[in-house]
Amino acid sequence: MSAVIPPIISLLTDFGSRDTYVGQMKGAILSLAPRATLVDLTHEIPAGDIIAGSLAWLDAVAAFPPGTIHLGVVDPGVGSERRAIVAEIGAWRFVCPDNGLLTGVLQTQRLHRAVEVRETRFWRNEISPVFHGRDIFGPVAAHLAAGIDLGEFGPAISSPLVEIDLLDPTNDNGVIQGCVLAADRFGNLRTNIPATLLSRRQATSTGWTIEIGDVKIHGVVRCYSDSPIGQLCTLIGSHGHLEIAVNQGHAQELLHAVRGTMVTVRQA
Amino acid sequence: MSAVIPPIISLLTDFGSRDTYVGQMKGAILSLAPRATLVDLTHEIPAGDIIAGSLAWLDAVAAFPPGTIHLGVVDPGVGSERRAIVAEIGAWRFVCPDNGLLTGVLQTQRLHRAVEVRETRFWRNEISPVFHGRDIFGPVAAHLAAGIDLGEFGPAISSPLVEIDLLDPTNDNGVIQGCVLAADRFGNLRTNIPATLLSRRQATSTGWTIEIGDVKIHGVVRCYSDSPIGQLCTLIGSHGHLEIAVNQGHAQELLHAVRGTMVTVRQA
Amino acid sequence: MSAVIPPIISLLTDFGSRDTYVGQMKGAILSLAPRATLVDLTHEIPAGDIIAGSLAWLDAVAAFPPGTIHLGVVDPGVGSERRAIVAEIGAWRFVCPDNGLLTGVLQTQRLHRAVEVRETRFWRNEISPVFHGRDIFGPVAAHLAAGIDLGEFGPAISSPLVEIDLLDPTNDNGVIQGCVLAADRFGNLRTNIPATLLSRRQATSTGWTIEIGDVKIHGVVRCYSDSPIGQLCTLIGSHGHLEIAVNQGHAQELLHAVRGTMVTVRQA
Repeated sequence: MSAVIPPIISLLTDFGSRDTYVGQMKGAILSLAPRATLVDLTHEIPAGDIIAGSLAWLDAVAAFPPGTIHLGVVDPGVGSERRAIVAEIGAWRFVCPDNGLLTGVLQTQRLHRAVEVRETRFWRNEISPVFHGRDIFGPVAAHLAAGIDLGEFGPAISSPLVEIDLLDPTNDNGVIQGCVLAADRFGNLRTNIPATLLSRRQATSTGWTIEIGDVKIHGVVRCYSDSPIGQLCTLIGSHGHLEIAVNQGHAQELLHAVRGTMVTVRQA
Repeated sequence: MSAVIPPIISLLTDFGSRDTYVGQMKGAILSLAPRATLVDLTHEIPAGDIIAGSLAWLDAVAAFPPGTIHLGVVDPGVGSERRAIVAEIGAWRFVCPDNGLLTGVLQTQRLHRAVEVRETRFWRNEISPVFHGRDIFGPVAAHLAAGIDLGEFGPAISSPLVEIDLLDPTNDNGVIQGCVLAADRFGNLRTNIPATLLSRRQATSTGWTIEIGDVKIHGVVRCYSDSPIGQLCTLIGSHGHLEIAVNQGHAQELLHAVRGTMVTVRQA
Repeated sequence: MSAVIPPIISLLTDFGSRDTYVGQMKGAILSLAPRATLVDLTHEIPAGDIIAGSLAWLDAVAAFPPGTIHLGVVDPGVGSERRAIVAEIGAWRFVCPDNGLLTGVLQTQRLHRAVEVRETRFWRNEISPVFHGRDIFGPVAAHLAAGIDLGEFGPAISSPLVEIDLLDPTNDNGVIQGCVLAADRFGNLRTNIPATLLSRRQATSTGWTIEIGDVKIHGVVRCYSDSPIGQLCTLIGSHGHLEIAVNQGHAQELLHAVRGTMVTVRQA
């Protein structure tokens, strides 16, 4: 007689940690699903930055066990006519506004089912038009964790989900043109160039050059400490994409790179 | 034979997330109540800012289920003669210093019982005079979660609990005079003017003007995206109070408003 | 038939809260140990700052119950030849890189057993050379929580664990020479001078002087509010070491002290 393992709900928002918004959303969830395990993915997505939210999910969801409920609230259109959705994609379930937040996940995982959240009986009693995280998305995720079937929350969606432009790289005869998508806490620059786009030689050889702005970096290393301290290097990040870094330094400050800064990979 | 649902302990402090103080307090709690569910409300209350802590509780506690234990440690007088208390207020229980942190909650919820924390057998073995969160408040909250009755922690309090000035608004023949109390991560300005103080016409009509500094804002919208991008608007925030915001912008930076900045609502 | 209490895993990293690294590591842990209770110690250790990480553990681990698994990933050498270890020290278990992170704990607690993490069957299926927190350390901590014996993870370590210089104080005929090790969120300066090194008279008397830079502070107070508002004072911090503080102020900003700034305790 084995006890049921409580479901995981991961939380991705732009609420920050200074206010009590995340805490309130968790209170609303635990009111309905007291045994759920809540995991903060991050709440530091820049305000309203759907691209950053979509990238965060793209890089992070696969670290969670199948069945995990990924709840995402980066929602500049809160209270407007944008749809609220629940979707089964890959091995996980997602609850979020239909504003492009799922773009990254949809590019790499299979969409099985999606419904529009319409059944108000699963919502909080009073709905603030500016806090659907606490009053709609959180309670829906909680009911899902408590065993309610996805189909109960509203009608199936037939039209495509909203997708945004995540700036795909191009490959022109082995010259790859991409860009920086984000910088992490360590200043490491995550590009949009997947390791799978690089040839085996490009991903491991010193016979290739990565250009960013006026700077050329030769070859790809395996880990940060394979590069001399303070020197720029490139490697395959934990997200499976080309990353530009400085061993024990801060590549972003050194290169003043931002989202969209061009990166070129070519034969030396 | 249904298992008992573990109690929730919500945590509100000014400890920040850089140091290990929150972690130590959680370790102390889980030593005594290993099945408690801990939820961070926020730990980013400015150091010693009891007003901000009181507002955080005012806005957040109702999102939690009845019985939740709200533990609050914003305690500039730690180690001094200020009382430590446990109180039943509204549907929840509170553990905190008696320094005004409960002011907001006491204004809106009914106080049922309060005791002064005196029984040292519920405290940690060694008490640091500068970390009662870990050594007194945390353990008391844990014992409460483990089922100890409030009356066990010390004698009933008969004298009034400490209350601070939360700057109530005035209403003079429909001209409401209030002020800004806080800005959130999005730069939205939370005022002290409750929606209940506004007439139905004021809360929904365009025939009213909100003045802050030299700026006049006409009418109240329903949600941020009902206002043009970059333009100041007012609405009823998720806390039920008048809020001044900029759709996809930052009202606080635009208006340089701080706690106490005057806000007037009048007929246009 | 009493249910087993889920083990606690405390998490100490330099990953920050902006990215999803901590969330991914938790996802990997909960995939293997779904009932573990995860507690954030802090994730704001400055990037690669092993001294700060070691101090955090020194000050914090004793607040957790015996058996707690302390997982630490401050790992500038990730992917290089540095060892990954599991150790039983004092009443707790530790999982971390062998780079000095355990120095503080080893100075105050007894090392019982340590093994080098080598058995890849306890790791994640795919290993990124730059994210051992998610792919090696996290899974090892999870298996430990799930009941795997320490000896299963790899061979016993016979050579000494790496230790770093934590800048011990000197005591020359009652004149104690130490230094600042860290500043906390409140600006309080934690020195390396333990209360046990002070005589009973030094720790409680006004007949002693603490010198830092050009500033002399006379005597030791019990708690912050025993000192006038805005005035420098010294006291024994919750970590059991001499601390320099300003009641309702910020000693670090006032004194411009950094790690290594000298502190002298002498008879007045």
